Amino acid sequence: MTVEQFATRHIGPGPDDERRMLDVVGHDSIDELMDAAIPEVIRWHGTLDLPDPATEAETIAELRAIAARNTVAVSMIGLGYHGTHTPAVIRRNVLEDPAWYTAYTPYQPEISQGRLEALLNFQTMVTDLTGLATANASMLDEGTAAAEAMTLARRASKSKSGVYVVDADALPQTIAVITSRAEPLGIDVRVLDVQRDELPAEFFGLHLQYPGASGAVRDHASLVEAAHAVGALVTVAADLLALTLLRAPGEIGADIAAGTTQRFGVPMGFGGPHAGYLAVRSGLERMLPGRLVGVSRDADGNPAYRLALQTREQHIRREKATSNICTAQVLLAVMAGMYAVYHGPDGLRDIATRTHRMAARLAAGLRAGGVDVADVAFFDTVTATVPGAAARVVAAAAQRGVNLRLVDADRVGVSCDETTTDAHLREVWAAFGVPAFDGDVDAALPVDLMRGSDFLTHPVFRSHHSETAMLRYLRRLSDFDYALDRGMIPLGSCTMKLNATTEMEPVSWAEFANIHPFAPDTQTVGYRELIGQLESWLAEVTGYDAVSVQPNAGSQGELAGLLAIRSYHASRGDTHRDVCLIPSSAHGTNAASAVMAGMRVVVVACDDDGNVDLVDLDAKIEKHRDALAAIMVTYPSTHGVYETGIASLCAKVHDAGGQVYVDGANLNALVGFAKPGKFGADVSHLNLHKTFCIPHGGGGPGVGPVAARAHLAPFLPGDPLGAHVDATPAISAAKYGSAGILPIPWAYLRMMGAEGLTRATGVAVLAANYVAARLRGHFPVLYAGNKGLVAHECILDLRPLTKATGVSVDDVAKRLIDYGFHAPTMSFPVAGTLMVEPTESEDLAELDRFCDAMIAIRAEIEQVGSGAWPAGDNPLANAPHTAAMVSGDEWSHAYPRSVGAYPAGVDRAGKYWPPVRRIDGAYGDRNLVCSCPSPEAFED
Amino acid sequence: MTVEQFATRHIGPGPDDERRMLDVVGHDSIDELMDAAIPEVIRWHGTLDLPDPATEAETIAELRAIAARNTVAVSMIGLGYHGTHTPAVIRRNVLEDPAWYTAYTPYQPEISQGRLEALLNFQTMVTDLTGLATANASMLDEGTAAAEAMTLARRASKSKSGVYVVDADALPQTIAVITSRAEPLGIDVRVLDVQRDELPAEFFGLHLQYPGASGAVRDHASLVEAAHAVGALVTVAADLLALTLLRAPGEIGADIAAGTTQRFGVPMGFGGPHAGYLAVRSGLERMLPGRLVGVSRDADGNPAYRLALQTREQHIRREKATSNICTAQVLLAVMAGMYAVYHGPDGLRDIATRTHRMAARLAAGLRAGGVDVADVAFFDTVTATVPGAAARVVAAAAQRGVNLRLVDADRVGVSCDETTTDAHLREVWAAFGVPAFDGDVDAALPVDLMRGSDFLTHPVFRSHHSETAMLRYLRRLSDFDYALDRGMIPLGSCTMKLNATTEMEPVSWAEFANIHPFAPDTQTVGYRELIGQLESWLAEVTGYDAVSVQPNAGSQGELAGLLAIRSYHASRGDTHRDVCLIPSSAHGTNAASAVMAGMRVVVVACDDDGNVDLVDLDAKIEKHRDALAAIMVTYPSTHGVYETGIASLCAKVHDAGGQVYVDGANLNALVGFAKPGKFGADVSHLNLHKTFCIPHGGGGPGVGPVAARAHLAPFLPGDPLGAHVDATPAISAAKYGSAGILPIPWAYLRMMGAEGLTRATGVAVLAANYVAARLRGHFPVLYAGNKGLVAHECILDLRPLTKATGVSVDDVAKRLIDYGFHAPTMSFPVAGTLMVEPTESEDLAELDRFCDAMIAIRAEIEQVGSGAWPAGDNPLANAPHTAAMVSGDEWSHAYPRSVGAYPAGVDRAGKYWPPVRRIDGAYGDRNLVCSCPSPEAFED
Repeated sequence: MTVEQFATRHIGPGPDDERRMLDVVGHDSIDELMDAAIPEVIRWHGTLDLPDPATEAETIAELRAIAARNTVAVSMIGLGYHGTHTPAVIRRNVLEDPAWYTAYTPYQPEISQGRLEALLNFQTMVTDLTGLATANASMLDEGTAAAEAMTLARRASKSKSGVYVVDADALPQTIAVITSRAEPLGIDVRVLDVQRDELPAEFFGLHLQYPGASGAVRDHASLVEAAHAVGALVTVAADLLALTLLRAPGEIGADIAAGTTQRFGVPMGFGGPHAGYLAVRSGLERMLPGRLVGVSRDADGNPAYRLALQTREQHIRREKATSNICTAQVLLAVMAGMYAVYHGPDGLRDIATRTHRMAARLAAGLRAGGVDVADVAFFDTVTATVPGAAARVVAAAAQRGVNLRLVDADRVGVSCDETTTDAHLREVWAAFGVPAFDGDVDAALPVDLMRGSDFLTHPVFRSHHSETAMLRYLRRLSDFDYALDRGMIPLGSCTMKLNATTEMEPVSWAEFANIHPFAPDTQTVGYRELIGQLESWLAEVTGYDAVSVQPNAGSQGELAGLLAIRSYHASRGDTHRDVCLIPSSAHGTNAASAVMAGMRVVVVACDDDGNVDLVDLDAKIEKHRDALAAIMVTYPSTHGVYETGIASLCAKVHDAGGQVYVDGANLNALVGFAKPGKFGADVSHLNLHKTFCIPHGGGGPGVGPVAARAHLAPFLPGDPLGAHVDATPAISAAKYGSAGILPIPWAYLRMMGAEGLTRATGVAVLAANYVAARLRGHFPVLYAGNKGLVAHECILDLRPLTKATGVSVDDVAKRLIDYGFHAPTMSFPVAGTLMVEPTESEDLAELDRFCDAMIAIRAEIEQVGSGAWPAGDNPLANAPHTAAMVSGDEWSHAYPRSVGAYPAGVDRAGKYWPPVRRIDGAYGDRNLVCSCPSPEAFED
Repeated sequence: MTVEQFATRHIGPGPDDERRMLDVVGHDSIDELMDAAIPEVIRWHGTLDLPDPATEAETIAELRAIAARNTVAVSMIGLGYHGTHTPAVIRRNVLEDPAWYTAYTPYQPEISQGRLEALLNFQTMVTDLTGLATANASMLDEGTAAAEAMTLARRASKSKSGVYVVDADALPQTIAVITSRAEPLGIDVRVLDVQRDELPAEFFGLHLQYPGASGAVRDHASLVEAAHAVGALVTVAADLLALTLLRAPGEIGADIAAGTTQRFGVPMGFGGPHAGYLAVRSGLERMLPGRLVGVSRDADGNPAYRLALQTREQHIRREKATSNICTAQVLLAVMAGMYAVYHGPDGLRDIATRTHRMAARLAAGLRAGGVDVADVAFFDTVTATVPGAAARVVAAAAQRGVNLRLVDADRVGVSCDETTTDAHLREVWAAFGVPAFDGDVDAALPVDLMRGSDFLTHPVFRSHHSETAMLRYLRRLSDFDYALDRGMIPLGSCTMKLNATTEMEPVSWAEFANIHPFAPDTQTVGYRELIGQLESWLAEVTGYDAVSVQPNAGSQGELAGLLAIRSYHASRGDTHRDVCLIPSSAHGTNAASAVMAGMRVVVVACDDDGNVDLVDLDAKIEKHRDALAAIMVTYPSTHGVYETGIASLCAKVHDAGGQVYVDGANLNALVGFAKPGKFGADVSHLNLHKTFCIPHGGGGPGVGPVAARAHLAPFLPGDPLGAHVDATPAISAAKYGSAGILPIPWAYLRMMGAEGLTRATGVAVLAANYVAARLRGHFPVLYAGNKGLVAHECILDLRPLTKATGVSVDDVAKRLIDYGFHAPTMSFPVAGTLMVEPTESEDLAELDRFCDAMIAIRAEIEQVGSGAWPAGDNPLANAPHTAAMVSGDEWSHAYPRSVGAYPAGVDRAGKYWPPVRRIDGAYGDRNLVCSCPSPEAFED
């Protein structure tokens, strides 16, 4: 390969590195290694049918051409997606900054204080604006947030009713997602005109939109009272910008608020990604799904942030989980939170006031021109009635470069936002055929609903209003964190490979960023072409017949896949098939997803080698033969092994009438060498942020396409705005989910081509086996498969050492920070172990740096074991060491400062220092604080 | 002002801050303060006639529209400007990264190790490729590098001759710049066909182009011998990419190499900015102009980088200087050096080989089609002869989207580069009317000139070839440095204000980045419109009649302004006027520029208040009345004072027939309040990287437009490609200099408008007076003017403290690093002082953080003075403290570690740690090493 070929940039080890690694692993070539590692029964020997790889320059040129086939219009469609000005300082220093976008989920909080603080700002912003007690660290979008609110209400409600009432003036895509989620759970969704229709006698929850999709701002207080009277909980799906002027949901008695923060500086991106939000009143916080950032303290007693209440999450609770959400929209939540930090309360109010003023002028102009505008209070959106002429008005506006909402044949919706200008209003008036309006207007907000309470009173929302101050705040926070731009993040099961700049750059282009998900097809030709190609390439890579990119996280892909299986069985009259077999080694999300798809989880045991126990499988199949819906397995297994029994497993399940779901989390070990769709699986989801280079963003965005064989294809996700049928559920609010970041995997596939992708897989497997070979003498490597080889990751067993010395997995993980590393995956899938996945992007120097660190740590553990260092006071127990600690005036530890600060081989000049010492998570859970602490809390 | 107005983001202090600052300063309003501070005699009371300020979004939209009026064609013009692929990882993480672009010149080396290492890479790249001993840290462009080579040759040559021979196959713009520089110095430039014409009997230097502008690659060895025989030095202007395949200048005996590194990943940008280079053989290194990075050691004896041999620079040598260069092209040199790091020697050779192959195929195709192609060896450029049809061919190619070089009526030049594709060749062949060619071709490089020597053998050029590795290397280096994204850089005389992201973003757009400076006018409509507007706005701000943006640094603007004065006098027959009066307080560059413009410098004294001594001025005028050419003064003075005598000074000089040059360095104290062109000056240069927001980039790029009244306008810089006349000199190689970054000041002016600009000046003056007021009780403030007020900066006098305690300015500057600051300007304009310029962009919190730190340092000095801390061992003498030092196992200092590490008020978690201790500059000058040291040098 030449310097021009992207694969040589993406893949870390060069030819010399590769040779040395093969020598250590004991194989002659990558081909030979792969032949040995991968069972022949699944091996696919073809060449992927993909376009020849393009150079980075060619790829950018092709993407420019595709982008040019999109049309960026002025969007006044509304419906939860609005034009917004992303402050340039935030775009450049968050969205386009690898320190933010290559960060992992903050499971190692000591090295994640920056993004945790940013998320705490986000949570504080949401709780302040909604007037509720606790908000989580973001949801996938407004639709799924509303669906989670529904299930939360069901859990929390004392009502025995299965009825959920939804305001007909809710966003149509939200209604679609709620309905799709409700069906498998047996919830009876009633969409009612809550202003006019009588409420059912019994219901467990009520969903209101505020302002409504029509734009109407209504006082929901009496509805809230009525709901509470029957024991129902009330969710208010509220627009945060409107809440700067309107009474907060918490102030009108809502139990839950849900929505999106997109218009806080996050581009529309043809539907996503954006950060949804979910907030609850006091008393419900421990039932909140998703991730929650909270304040705790570190070993020195200083305030420190970490994820709170993790025991309620799906990966812990498995089939007892009430939600399957893993991924949040961290990167986008950081942007939205920083938008609030940058503008502050006065700035947001100013933006809201200008937006409202535009809408008021728009309405006044339409009325002055004789157009019938609904006589209700509104914030930013007005609905005009033009009998029989709506399509014509919308078309005329589109001709003028403005997209309006076609409500029905007689009605047009027009939504203003912070980007709306007088010129836009003139185009709209012209499209309606009325003269431009130049008179004064009054606010059209109801006096009774005007907000009286303060919000964003914390100093962080008042300290960073100049660009200089904002820039420094962003730098300060990102400096707290360890991301891929500092070093390796060898997380087993969470591939952390290069997110190449060429893949990232197009995400910022206006032609991808500034497209409304409901823009007319004529304006989205490029996007749909790109998505179509991406879906077809992913189908080729996985061996499936059809792919949908709609699920905006892996968890959503799982749900979509299981719902497809459910619908398939139903379509054949097999409505009784509801058992989902799940091996004990599975990701916890699998079980949670199965429950959400209305299935019963039956666990299949694993044998001592970590493989699915085929005897137990036989027994479970036999026991549930008639009810068998599916099996969910991960391949290679979560133990990082290519199980040889996979083909037989598939056959057994198929024989019993079940479907095979292969979790695509570990696809990085298969691409080019095996195709799930060809070795027996019926459906998979992929995590594009793992194998296909969407950056983790500190814990999102994610994209979790679902891929299926032809018989399941009719049941894949449908258009949330289409006529809703159960067979094609709405998994996300937008048809193509997080479309805005799909240029990333598109570019990756386009640049790597068949040869590059295949080589990446081989190098990833080589790297994992190299690490295993180098460390096997120091830590037992669990679960090797064929010929002692692992797949793309390896599990290091610390249990014997822990037993002998008391040094825990946690100690080793924190000590790795002192050596300049992010810890591998801890205690998954096996408690007491570390799972290491180096990926193909790390070069030999970095792999060796890691192995050397682990070997040095092994020697440190010996020192504890031998008693040279006390169990309670050694560099492992005290890790990580902060600069403040090692430079303190007093030092009473049993080892010198230099051992704490600069263990062997650590680069002194460039050392990364964590800002806090080890964090006490339990303390924070006992004293739950999930919004910004006062500055006084940080005083020495 | 609302949240939408850019001025509220650019200006740090909000209304509350402003109120508090005014209280401390003792004035009621900014207007009142400015009335008091600025002498009425210069005060201008109008409102700047500029467009109403645009919002950031509007400005981007306008710039998009302007950009769209440029046409990005395939550039095959050559002549030193080539298409290049900027690696995306370098674009995003250098050019677009504030950690790199907001850094200052590395005068504080302890906090500049990252960019110093990057520059050392650049120097190593240049020395390796040219085969010479020492290269400097970049030049402004190839033309000025060649001109500096000429004057270097004159100084070093033993020949008494005043003749400089220039190869007629040199780049035409280089010839123009050389000629312009030669004329005032009395150098006789002879442009000869060195292959055929006889050389003069005597000459001091010879300039050769390699390969030539025509593309010809010739063996210059015998010419070198001939030149050396008469005591002349030889400069080879060489293409670095070609040097990966061709024998190096040093290998054929050249004394000097000069050129550009543009094609190493730096966009053409319609002419700049790019990093020129200059390298010399052993023995000439101490005569090298410009900045030179060298290796020295820190207080612990570890290798550390800093600027070497600073005593030879113009700010030290003043009128004895041999060059006036201050600014380098650091940001672009970093990019070019990183391009070499990323590609490595094999990658560069690969790129060169592909480029050459394209040219060889091009030539073969032309010849096969019957076109006459010059029968010489070539690298990337061929010259085709098409009698009488050259214009037609060039036009046909332009029609096909390809720009060729119109050499003359009969000849067309075609130049290939790394972006050239087969499709481009087909377009060229079609434009020539010959069929596409598909045969094999041989290399057209002369065997005798093929390079045999290795280059880029240092490990840094072999360690960062994957994008992951490159990203981390860039992050590591930028983390070493302190830039505006970390905190205030309160450098007197070097305004370090916000470089807003909205100003920076357009620089990356293809429509600005990828335009050749000699592209046809039809393709550069947008650029020329933008430049025209910018020039007219700058004229309005300064009160002059004409502006030229050609000078690509302030020093070049000075030269251009003085040459205009010289030409003006000459045009009136006043050829005897050659005395330039310069106050003793002037920037050293002023004197150096005067010498370069052929003038004699006469120094005018300053009085005790720092003002120009009008009595001495009278005396000097009297003495030199007939020879008086000009006076150069800075206003406000370099002492940061609005001198009241300025109008009288101007009148006196004018009365004696002289011209008044006002150095615009301190324009940030005048904009909106006074106009040099209206208070008596005839000409000024501006530093756009000071007042007008071009980022310092670690020491460049700079842009130094020259502005003049109407009578001097005819003598401003001309088109280097135009028919050259002495009256309109070629100051830079490209007509519009560093055009590629002019969108930055354009955007600043567009967004600020008259009100914003005026307010910025007022806040800058308020901030300086606030600092002076807060610190006056702790350090004497020198040179206050009207009513005890300073202008935009203040001088803190440390001399009494130094005398009493031994604590030096250097100690205080280094101690400020421990407090998290970049030091103010040291010992300029007065030795033993610190000059502080806070700018308008710093908010009150940051101003107070600085004042608090200075006050705390004052107390520390007391501790030394009182003997509580020994003079040789205290936190000031030992500053800056590294993390390694304060966490060392041993601590024997007279103060606790915590005092060293975390002096009062320093943020522990977010502390910036310098990577090295105080650097011994003299050691490095005695042991001059200016290329990358071996890795072993860094071993503990």
